[in-house]
Amino acid sequence: MSDYKTVQALKQIDSQIAAPFRGIFILRRKTVKTARTGNPFLSIEIGDSGGSFNANCFDGTPVYEALVEASEGSIVRIAGKTEYYQDRFSPKLQAAEVIEASEAEAEGVLSQLVEIPPEPEEELWADIVAAIAAIEHPQLQETVQRVMDETATQFRTSTAAINMHHAYRHGLLEHTTHMVRACRALLPLYPQVDPDLAIAGIILHDIGKLEEYEGDFAAKVSRIGTLQGHVVLGFRTVRKAAIQCKLNADLTERLEHIILSHQGEKEWGAAAMAATPEAVFVSMIDNLDAKMGMVQRVLRNTPEGEQFSEYLMGLQTRVLLTPPDKT
Amino acid sequence: MSDYKTVQALKQIDSQIAAPFRGIFILRRKTVKTARTGNPFLSIEIGDSGGSFNANCFDGTPVYEALVEASEGSIVRIAGKTEYYQDRFSPKLQAAEVIEASEAEAEGVLSQLVEIPPEPEEELWADIVAAIAAIEHPQLQETVQRVMDETATQFRTSTAAINMHHAYRHGLLEHTTHMVRACRALLPLYPQVDPDLAIAGIILHDIGKLEEYEGDFAAKVSRIGTLQGHVVLGFRTVRKAAIQCKLNADLTERLEHIILSHQGEKEWGAAAMAATPEAVFVSMIDNLDAKMGMVQRVLRNTPEGEQFSEYLMGLQTRVLLTPPDKT
Amino acid sequence: MSDYKTVQALKQIDSQIAAPFRGIFILRRKTVKTARTGNPFLSIEIGDSGGSFNANCFDGTPVYEALVEASEGSIVRIAGKTEYYQDRFSPKLQAAEVIEASEAEAEGVLSQLVEIPPEPEEELWADIVAAIAAIEHPQLQETVQRVMDETATQFRTSTAAINMHHAYRHGLLEHTTHMVRACRALLPLYPQVDPDLAIAGIILHDIGKLEEYEGDFAAKVSRIGTLQGHVVLGFRTVRKAAIQCKLNADLTERLEHIILSHQGEKEWGAAAMAATPEAVFVSMIDNLDAKMGMVQRVLRNTPEGEQFSEYLMGLQTRVLLTPPDKT
Amino acid sequence: MSDYKTVQALKQIDSQIAAPFRGIFILRRKTVKTARTGNPFLSIEIGDSGGSFNANCFDGTPVYEALVEASEGSIVRIAGKTEYYQDRFSPKLQAAEVIEASEAEAEGVLSQLVEIPPEPEEELWADIVAAIAAIEHPQLQETVQRVMDETATQFRTSTAAINMHHAYRHGLLEHTTHMVRACRALLPLYPQVDPDLAIAGIILHDIGKLEEYEGDFAAKVSRIGTLQGHVVLGFRTVRKAAIQCKLNADLTERLEHIILSHQGEKEWGAAAMAATPEAVFVSMIDNLDAKMGMVQRVLRNTPEGEQFSEYLMGLQTRVLLTPPDKT
Amino acid sequence: MSDYKTVQALKQIDSQIAAPFRGIFILRRKTVKTARTGNPFLSIEIGDSGGSFNANCFDGTPVYEALVEASEGSIVRIAGKTEYYQDRFSPKLQAAEVIEASEAEAEGVLSQLVEIPPEPEEELWADIVAAIAAIEHPQLQETVQRVMDETATQFRTSTAAINMHHAYRHGLLEHTTHMVRACRALLPLYPQVDPDLAIAGIILHDIGKLEEYEGDFAAKVSRIGTLQGHVVLGFRTVRKAAIQCKLNADLTERLEHIILSHQGEKEWGAAAMAATPEAVFVSMIDNLDAKMGMVQRVLRNTPEGEQFSEYLMGLQTRVLLTPPDKT
Amino acid sequence: MSDYKTVQALKQIDSQIAAPFRGIFILRRKTVKTARTGNPFLSIEIGDSGGSFNANCFDGTPVYEALVEASEGSIVRIAGKTEYYQDRFSPKLQAAEVIEASEAEAEGVLSQLVEIPPEPEEELWADIVAAIAAIEHPQLQETVQRVMDETATQFRTSTAAINMHHAYRHGLLEHTTHMVRACRALLPLYPQVDPDLAIAGIILHDIGKLEEYEGDFAAKVSRIGTLQGHVVLGFRTVRKAAIQCKLNADLTERLEHIILSHQGEKEWGAAAMAATPEAVFVSMIDNLDAKMGMVQRVLRNTPEGEQFSEYLMGLQTRVLLTPPDKT
Repeated sequence: MSDYKTVQALKQIDSQIAAPFRGIFILRRKTVKTARTGNPFLSIEIGDSGGSFNANCFDGTPVYEALVEASEGSIVRIAGKTEYYQDRFSPKLQAAEVIEASEAEAEGVLSQLVEIPPEPEEELWADIVAAIAAIEHPQLQETVQRVMDETATQFRTSTAAINMHHAYRHGLLEHTTHMVRACRALLPLYPQVDPDLAIAGIILHDIGKLEEYEGDFAAKVSRIGTLQGHVVLGFRTVRKAAIQCKLNADLTERLEHIILSHQGEKEWGAAAMAATPEAVFVSMIDNLDAKMGMVQRVLRNTPEGEQFSEYLMGLQTRVLLTPPDKT
Repeated sequence: MSDYKTVQALKQIDSQIAAPFRGIFILRRKTVKTARTGNPFLSIEIGDSGGSFNANCFDGTPVYEALVEASEGSIVRIAGKTEYYQDRFSPKLQAAEVIEASEAEAEGVLSQLVEIPPEPEEELWADIVAAIAAIEHPQLQETVQRVMDETATQFRTSTAAINMHHAYRHGLLEHTTHMVRACRALLPLYPQVDPDLAIAGIILHDIGKLEEYEGDFAAKVSRIGTLQGHVVLGFRTVRKAAIQCKLNADLTERLEHIILSHQGEKEWGAAAMAATPEAVFVSMIDNLDAKMGMVQRVLRNTPEGEQFSEYLMGLQTRVLLTPPDKT
Repeated sequence: MSDYKTVQALKQIDSQIAAPFRGIFILRRKTVKTARTGNPFLSIEIGDSGGSFNANCFDGTPVYEALVEASEGSIVRIAGKTEYYQDRFSPKLQAAEVIEASEAEAEGVLSQLVEIPPEPEEELWADIVAAIAAIEHPQLQETVQRVMDETATQFRTSTAAINMHHAYRHGLLEHTTHMVRACRALLPLYPQVDPDLAIAGIILHDIGKLEEYEGDFAAKVSRIGTLQGHVVLGFRTVRKAAIQCKLNADLTERLEHIILSHQGEKEWGAAAMAATPEAVFVSMIDNLDAKMGMVQRVLRNTPEGEQFSEYLMGLQTRVLLTPPDKT
Repeated sequence: MSDYKTVQALKQIDSQIAAPFRGIFILRRKTVKTARTGNPFLSIEIGDSGGSFNANCFDGTPVYEALVEASEGSIVRIAGKTEYYQDRFSPKLQAAEVIEASEAEAEGVLSQLVEIPPEPEEELWADIVAAIAAIEHPQLQETVQRVMDETATQFRTSTAAINMHHAYRHGLLEHTTHMVRACRALLPLYPQVDPDLAIAGIILHDIGKLEEYEGDFAAKVSRIGTLQGHVVLGFRTVRKAAIQCKLNADLTERLEHIILSHQGEKEWGAAAMAATPEAVFVSMIDNLDAKMGMVQRVLRNTPEGEQFSEYLMGLQTRVLLTPPDKT
Repeated sequence: MSDYKTVQALKQIDSQIAAPFRGIFILRRKTVKTARTGNPFLSIEIGDSGGSFNANCFDGTPVYEALVEASEGSIVRIAGKTEYYQDRFSPKLQAAEVIEASEAEAEGVLSQLVEIPPEPEEELWADIVAAIAAIEHPQLQETVQRVMDETATQFRTSTAAINMHHAYRHGLLEHTTHMVRACRALLPLYPQVDPDLAIAGIILHDIGKLEEYEGDFAAKVSRIGTLQGHVVLGFRTVRKAAIQCKLNADLTERLEHIILSHQGEKEWGAAAMAATPEAVFVSMIDNLDAKMGMVQRVLRNTPEGEQFSEYLMGLQTRVLLTPPDKT
Repeated sequence: MSDYKTVQALKQIDSQIAAPFRGIFILRRKTVKTARTGNPFLSIEIGDSGGSFNANCFDGTPVYEALVEASEGSIVRIAGKTEYYQDRFSPKLQAAEVIEASEAEAEGVLSQLVEIPPEPEEELWADIVAAIAAIEHPQLQETVQRVMDETATQFRTSTAAINMHHAYRHGLLEHTTHMVRACRALLPLYPQVDPDLAIAGIILHDIGKLEEYEGDFAAKVSRIGTLQGHVVLGFRTVRKAAIQCKLNADLTERLEHIILSHQGEKEWGAAAMAATPEAVFVSMIDNLDAKMGMVQRVLRNTPEGEQFSEYLMGLQTRVLLTPPDKT
């Protein structure tokens, strides 16, 4: 275990003591303010997956210099001393440094910083790779592959949502892989569904989210996300790749239709109602895995001993957390 | 091929000719009216899966005697002569006889009378039997088995709905079996779901429909169906069996909860929102197979050469019927 | 007047003074936390109908011992000294003891602890007793009596809701009695309504709430309440009693139907739409008394001198509180 | 029994016979058309509470002269001969005469022409008179009296609706009287409600319908009804009377508020949400009697032997018609 | 006036006479059926803006040969004799010929065939041309011009809708021109709105309808219209032109956003909510002209003497047709 | 620039210093409380358009005397010393005085106190005056003029809303003038709309808001506003003036209909759906200017440098604030 303290650990230190500490955190918010002296200072919020705290960094200090150019969502290594002001944890920061995600991973603290899926990214990704390889229609396979070639890094780390299901790092990859697996399991039961189209549609259905959100560790909706939404953005990406790969007109339309209709209802953002066997199928699997993903997350994250989870908007109820009594 | 004519065949006979014919049909509607003479007569509608026609049967005739006590939804063997009145097909009926479904089946005309699933009833049923056998928890298995023992005949022939998905003979069996298959395919992907509970819940989820509908070949909502609805009726059936089989309290509650919540939304009739992993899972599979069942049916039933189906209320669109161009 | 201080009285004491006090309160929340020493301590919220405050009870103290096993919603007698920390009222607790509701009543402080109806419980209950006695059909009377025999204590004290109408101690009894009275007043006007069924339906319509909520003085939804809801729970209770009392099938179905349909709309939890004269009647009286109960409560509770109440969700407006000018 | 034939009786006459007949009917629709000769003719629909038929009246005939100026909704005495054309009942009309409702009543056929309530108009009206007399506040009583003085004839005969509850002749009187009775029965239970205001509000709540609809025996929405709606029209009538009777400002506002809010929800036409004890009370009694009125009507009108009524939009279900089994 | 008869004129001919006639009509529906002889025949519906009739064309006749390959929506010149069968107008067709819209126009009957706007197409179009010329930003102007160059013929004749506003030939042109005029009138009042973007957005906002509908004189939704909808189709067209014209990224996004958001609400098909001054502005002008277009059309089309129009779904009321009394 | 400090300026003064200051503010809230001594004190909130703070005024002090009778929404001149308590700005007040709005205006601080439109009130008002003068129908002009004569002062200063569009001082005047301008610009395009009625309808459409809200500088819904709503209140005002000016019945009804229908949808408060050309027109212009007003305000008020505004409920999105790139 590293000697980097988590926010929870820092807050458990006796408030009377000024204890020196080191930590790696996400820079959640950063605002430039003007002090009464007329000089600027930074008001920042930093935190990890277990909590956060505020601090001020005054002009001319090394911490100010280190953070003044940092963007929200950066990872920062901090050194400081614990301190309380007005009963709130307000540590004195002595040094700060923006570091790469890879370094946080190397230090073994990345999973403390942000929530991640229980299954390793590599395993999830391997199933996407295999699913693409199994697409038999050459231009369809090439279309999916081309989109993945251009987006893989982002696709593998992005969240699937800001508020709802799979709303965490690698959430989009996890959700997509789970849908691929569900699709392959169900395809034998619905022979009316073309497997190539269904798999291609699933892998690409949420690809527009890579443009809809921005910010690596503190996702928010981007300009283009506000102006167009992920359904249209995904449609654009898929259409461009399909044209480049000379996918025939019929398959292009059907693939685009899966993207355009996967949200299920117009008020949830669907541009068209699902009207092909594949589009109905993908839309239903999306809904199934989204809801099951909420159940899985809440089972994973709620502290031991609770009978019910908090109320979940997406399920309109609390979830029973205890296992069935199979005696 | 039998010499029984279908309604479509009868209507293709030259309207100028009074051709003698025999046919086996469903008695769809039967109303007793009073003629101007003061005598009663029957106004009936009879038909098969391809159409229907009206006829009057006057007091004292053999046809009147044969049908006056018949209930709507009966199967009748008819002999008559074709005739047209005011440009409408109005055959003269000469003999009529109520027969059993088994006889219609023996004559090989049952599938002309009513829509049935493409897969034989026996195959569909075999998967239910196997799924029950695979439930490991003894009392849970016994609970499902007991309900099936009491309802099997009806369960195997009933429709799953009057208007929406799987709305045809054996439709409930087909929908339930498809859900069982989907469940088994998906269970490895969602280890948080208890397989025994999910399978038991699926087999029993719509069992209340056996009481909600009445009428063998012309389903309508029964008195108890109007007063309680299939969700509560299914809950009663399952609860009674669970108590008789001494299923423990926790499993009983969870099984009941699957029945009570499977409709997904309160306005669709759910008594509670799905709040266990198994209930969310069953509710989502129900929705998936209901929608896919509409797609399958429309692909099966729309005449060759149409590009799109009629508008389907359940999918809020027309369905594209042509296969993808995989060249 | 007792020497027990209310929360309001405690907060009016000069904050500079450490005044000793005694009080009887509800234990609203209780959480076990771990101190920096590694020892457990209790973080509690206690209060009465006029407010609440927080306190910490450290391991090894008599207060800790007295409360560590107490459940939320218990009544506690407290001795302590007033104290302020960071401008918040944070008294030092010196002794604590869980007591029975009866003792709080004996001390004359029960009505300070929780909101109660203006009419004495005994009077409200007497009308329920009389209404049962007036049911003429023997098995129907017996059915209602049996349910009451099993639930009377709880029925007489329970709230009718957590948030909406009659949401206070004895609220269920008050609401039910008011509905009984309204029913008796209206029955002569609607001779299509069977009096026995209407009265029985009213007395039992919300009986499922006794299982839906739990916690004597701090009601929250129970496990079974989340999984089934009060409509189904009430249906179960009534069905069981009807079978035990050999109520005939027709009356059983009609009585059950009143329970299942009384919520009025499917999205408010009705399992079926009211389809008998009695069910429509009970459902409308329920709605009338629920809305009038909100009006009565707000007239009772708003401080003198206000022209309008706060905005009430259930009425979608503020209520005018001043009396009409009848000069 | 008169020798006037009803539509049902006419249709039972042997279609081969040209039988002379007399009848009194409502002129439901009347359109002037141009024949191929260039001459005008009338295409009319006439009927009674049991059905209707069409006929053409050619220029220059006595029937044409008698009806060319008649307005839709008139009562007409007809003489003619039965005749069938293309299998439809198309009698030849030989004489026609517009008569007054009073004459139809004298002939004892008014109740065949239109649906009316089971209780005599006089009895219903007597309760309105008594209720007005019991209003204690002089100006409030005078306000109600003044409105009634101006509208009594119309108020006593008008329908309460076109499609929904109490949609028949005298329906408004019946509904209002039933609400008055319900109000008087319930007032002792809700002492927060001012009796004078509640009774005045009930008697006047739907008074705007007298202007919203037009046409004595074939109600349709008038010009002012389309442009303003009955809520605003009623408000105008009541406000004018209140000012003329010098009702004080507070009572005027409260009375107006009852009219403006009685529809209960904005989407049903309420101009404001009920915000006084009286307005909530009147609005709830209106809803209760509207729903019970639908139940009463359907019990009254459905033919013997039916178990369930047709599906009623206003109740969102079919109504069980058989009486409870009280054995 | 031509000697071509309209449907209305044909139906006014004495039904006893077999009058020879000529007419130019739209072929509305065409179905190939099989006669009892086993030979095919055509069942067709033909009509003009004033009505329609059915006819059968038997194999081997010249009419059959002339129409067997004609597509629905074609214009046909017919010669025949009037005839009635079963009281329905069923003329005998003797000759038929598919002709071009230009020929119908030359014969002066085009406006009898289909509804068209009151203002000549040329005038409407001139305003579009002028508006494009007035766009100052070169690439933006070029983008609009390019789309118009590719679609002008279709754009000038297409309907704006199937059911709702401006649902007739040239309706899209009329609606777009009216919006352009409204925009120019309002621009001085909202200086926050960029004129170039607003005008470009208006001209292109419904361009996707050219692909959403198909069929020249009998519009229905096309395959791509069902799969993608006009919002996405318009977006595609505009995006392609913008890229070809090297429109800068910011303007391209803003122009696309106007197309994507103009429907106003997600449930009406908007892919994004209007989030720029221009998008809000265009969306509001679209709504204003759509509603006013319904008013204009109903004032134009309702027969003299009616006080109110039929009920209009789009306005949720009937429209008062008489002019204000300005005396 | 005056020496009166704004709230923002006061909060920037060093918290360690007790700096004397003067300021002019709105008295936002005022509550009388009882101190532990038994004496009353005032707890007040005062502020300007840039923020607010709380203070207590004790019995017997000059500030207490000056404010005890002041009503919420008054303008007060304050003298005091800055002070911080528990980290919150809690100045010590030394003198207070209620002043008139005119004095605040004379001191040049009115625009600091409350938000106002960018265009001077006089210019906005001049357009209303001119629009009234241009109404050609004498009684219609007189009707509008009469209403304005009675309400002008209030009409010119009132807000158009509490929460939504144009929710600031003079907002009603600004919104109405903008609608008048839009109307005049659009009238030539919609000749079916009567200009006199449209202009009169626009000027009066929201006149009921003068009674719906109360409080000069801190608007809240009045008693009559709660009981009747601005639609009915405006209808009353307009109807009274129309009768006084002998406006003919047809125009009175049409003018009233514009008021009653301008909200557009029943759930937004429309008493009737717009059913005349003028009513549809006014309702659409109202919607257009309301939405554009939100855009204008947010462009005006958001600090430099932000790309998007906050999320706006009325537009259901954030607004892009940066200007288009017209290079």
